[in-house]
Amino acid sequence: MTKKFVIIGGDAAGMSAASKIRRMQPESEVIVFEKGPHISFAACGMPYWIGGVIEDGRKLQVLTPEIARDKRNLDVRIGHEVVKIDVSNKSIVVRDLDSGEKFNEAYDKLLIATGARAIVPPIPGVGYEGVFTLRSLADGHRIKNYIADHGISHATIIGGGHIGLEMAEAFRHLRIDVTMLVRGDQIAPSMDSDLLDQLTEHVLENGVDLQLRTGVESIHRLDQGLLVRASSGDVKTDIVLVSTGVEPNSELAIEAGIEVGNSGAIIINKHMQTSVENIYASGDCAEHNHRVLDESMWIPMATSANKGGRIAGENMAGGHANFPGILGTAVTKVFDFTIAQTGLTEKQAERMGTLSNIETTTIIGGNRAHYYPGSQPMTVKLVVDKISKRLLGAQMIGKSDVAKRLDVFATAITAKMSVEDISMLDLTYAPPISPVYDPILVAANVANK
Amino acid sequence: MTKKFVIIGGDAAGMSAASKIRRMQPESEVIVFEKGPHISFAACGMPYWIGGVIEDGRKLQVLTPEIARDKRNLDVRIGHEVVKIDVSNKSIVVRDLDSGEKFNEAYDKLLIATGARAIVPPIPGVGYEGVFTLRSLADGHRIKNYIADHGISHATIIGGGHIGLEMAEAFRHLRIDVTMLVRGDQIAPSMDSDLLDQLTEHVLENGVDLQLRTGVESIHRLDQGLLVRASSGDVKTDIVLVSTGVEPNSELAIEAGIEVGNSGAIIINKHMQTSVENIYASGDCAEHNHRVLDESMWIPMATSANKGGRIAGENMAGGHANFPGILGTAVTKVFDFTIAQTGLTEKQAERMGTLSNIETTTIIGGNRAHYYPGSQPMTVKLVVDKISKRLLGAQMIGKSDVAKRLDVFATAITAKMSVEDISMLDLTYAPPISPVYDPILVAANVANK
Repeated sequence: MTKKFVIIGGDAAGMSAASKIRRMQPESEVIVFEKGPHISFAACGMPYWIGGVIEDGRKLQVLTPEIARDKRNLDVRIGHEVVKIDVSNKSIVVRDLDSGEKFNEAYDKLLIATGARAIVPPIPGVGYEGVFTLRSLADGHRIKNYIADHGISHATIIGGGHIGLEMAEAFRHLRIDVTMLVRGDQIAPSMDSDLLDQLTEHVLENGVDLQLRTGVESIHRLDQGLLVRASSGDVKTDIVLVSTGVEPNSELAIEAGIEVGNSGAIIINKHMQTSVENIYASGDCAEHNHRVLDESMWIPMATSANKGGRIAGENMAGGHANFPGILGTAVTKVFDFTIAQTGLTEKQAERMGTLSNIETTTIIGGNRAHYYPGSQPMTVKLVVDKISKRLLGAQMIGKSDVAKRLDVFATAITAKMSVEDISMLDLTYAPPISPVYDPILVAANVANK
Repeated sequence: MTKKFVIIGGDAAGMSAASKIRRMQPESEVIVFEKGPHISFAACGMPYWIGGVIEDGRKLQVLTPEIARDKRNLDVRIGHEVVKIDVSNKSIVVRDLDSGEKFNEAYDKLLIATGARAIVPPIPGVGYEGVFTLRSLADGHRIKNYIADHGISHATIIGGGHIGLEMAEAFRHLRIDVTMLVRGDQIAPSMDSDLLDQLTEHVLENGVDLQLRTGVESIHRLDQGLLVRASSGDVKTDIVLVSTGVEPNSELAIEAGIEVGNSGAIIINKHMQTSVENIYASGDCAEHNHRVLDESMWIPMATSANKGGRIAGENMAGGHANFPGILGTAVTKVFDFTIAQTGLTEKQAERMGTLSNIETTTIIGGNRAHYYPGSQPMTVKLVVDKISKRLLGAQMIGKSDVAKRLDVFATAITAKMSVEDISMLDLTYAPPISPVYDPILVAANVANK
């Protein structure tokens, strides 16, 4: 019996699932409803496109609705918003945003892949022209056009997270002055603050007027441009990017009685099933199992959307695949620096009340043999279980060859390795590539003492 | 009771052991006998020093005898050759190469860390001035001086292994023409040949006259320079580097009745103990447990000499540390390319008669998101157990960000991960760093099908 598969959301998770179902069941009906005008785009590439590093924005479009229809035989309907899930009738209510008309669509298996949206804080004036968030490709187009159409010489970024930092670099690349207003006392808030002195310095050196511990009270229109009233004073500016985090698009699921976590994101099991039969969820709207904590956590990432979407698709089409979970692995280029993390941070342990169970080690190592020209230092911080000496988390910061070294730690954490196990790994060594004791091994050795 | 520790060989393994013993037993007697004039030098850096990439050769000296004596309180005696181990009397016979005098030295615990030496094939004329091998720091000095003192415009390298390739690059960096004569049908003989087309092309493009399937019959002196008579014809040249592999310095051990393997290298257990009580071995003179094959194998590497030496020292000083073994992980920069391998190759499986137990996967992936400028392709080949789908080996080649990706595979092999496990790793992703599906994940996904 061929089944009818309906997918809500046409980005990474939704399209990965749709494509997988199509490969497994060439004859089945697969419908993807996408509210916006685009599907499957490389959101993470937008800062580089806005900043002019990537010249052709069309390259960010991984898949167009036309190609999805013609090449993959997927019934993709953009401009269609799903407004209700009717669990008892196994159907959904869809609104065609062009015509405004609503219709019902039945499903055998449903995937919720509605993603997340930028948080818009309740700052007076946040709705003015020239104030943006960056989440959808349409957001990217709007910002890009606004910069092109207006004489932008100054930008204000509210928030110091990964997107804020990438956009600071993008604006600087366009020779636009940047003020960054951060409520907390550090940039890169997902990382431990003791690692960030160099990065903060580097951001300042790159001409970003960084103001920490600074709240934004209101935004005002001027004859020309905008005025941001911050706790540290007024900032005259031409464009404002609000980059204060994201929240899951889970209202549809909540209204249908599907279980969500404290984060508001949908709770799923390892098969990507929600609490309601025949309904799956994947991507930024869903929590995933954190492999270190063995708890459901919401850490939205493109990587888990892609992997999880594919697994949801496989299981919807009759497979039995498991998604083992996430480590919260993340990396960001910040001007010349790369910052990366995986697993547990010290800060997280503190928040969870498990600080007494861990110990930390921080070392500095080189990316090459010390005598080889161009060797760059990197800082490695490990979070280790005090009793078992198992690695629970790693953070790294440096100018070169940081990210894929962090991946060794991500792999080691997944394998539940102790720091002694890691210190005995047989890793690549050649003077242009690594010191004979790679920083990975040095960190593990020191943590093992 | 303080013990007397004697170490034969003052390079990476010997000095790692000596330093570890000193830290654990500050009062004990630790004597290191080194035949040559140097201890603990960065052998792997020599091609870059000869080629002028590293300007100051003193930087290759990790430790001098003076510093070892003054700072680490180690009794290091250079110019002292150990000529006999007297197992029954727990003593050795040492010859002072300056005076020619011999003396006995008793030991409680002895470490053999005699390393390996370059193979000198029985080619007529191989002893002429201008014909070199490159193994010791003294070799490096001799080559460096010869190049400086003579008008070198052409070099001939016999052998296409890692040292030969690094020296080809070094000579080219000095604008010296290079002919490379290789008996076999591929360069980088430890890797699978199907990966090497690009590399071979690249070596040719960099001005190396590479001649495969070419034997060398004899070397002759000319009025000016040398003539190499090869099966492919005569090569007029100014300097010859014989780089046809290494063999273990294990004669001392063999004469003492210590067990060696088929390779001729010393067999040790996980505690670095030889077959004779109170005698340990470490470094390039010893075999190590291969973690994939669970067999004793001789793959001499600086990394295992450093790690194993430290563990030998710990156990000699009363500790109980294990050296879990090696994967044969190796990396070489070859002009703009990096080649790297870990674990089993297809060629090894063939040689061992286990080819029917494995399957291989080869993919090409990018080091960055395809739309991010400067993305470079890399080739990944995996060797996988057919039944268990466990990863047994990985090889990579590409221009950027290859080596530390290979280390993820080395870590995964160590953890006995299946390709499915690897495909689910939560690895770093950001457009300047990686595609959303890193080549690591792509290779694992394809291998998992």
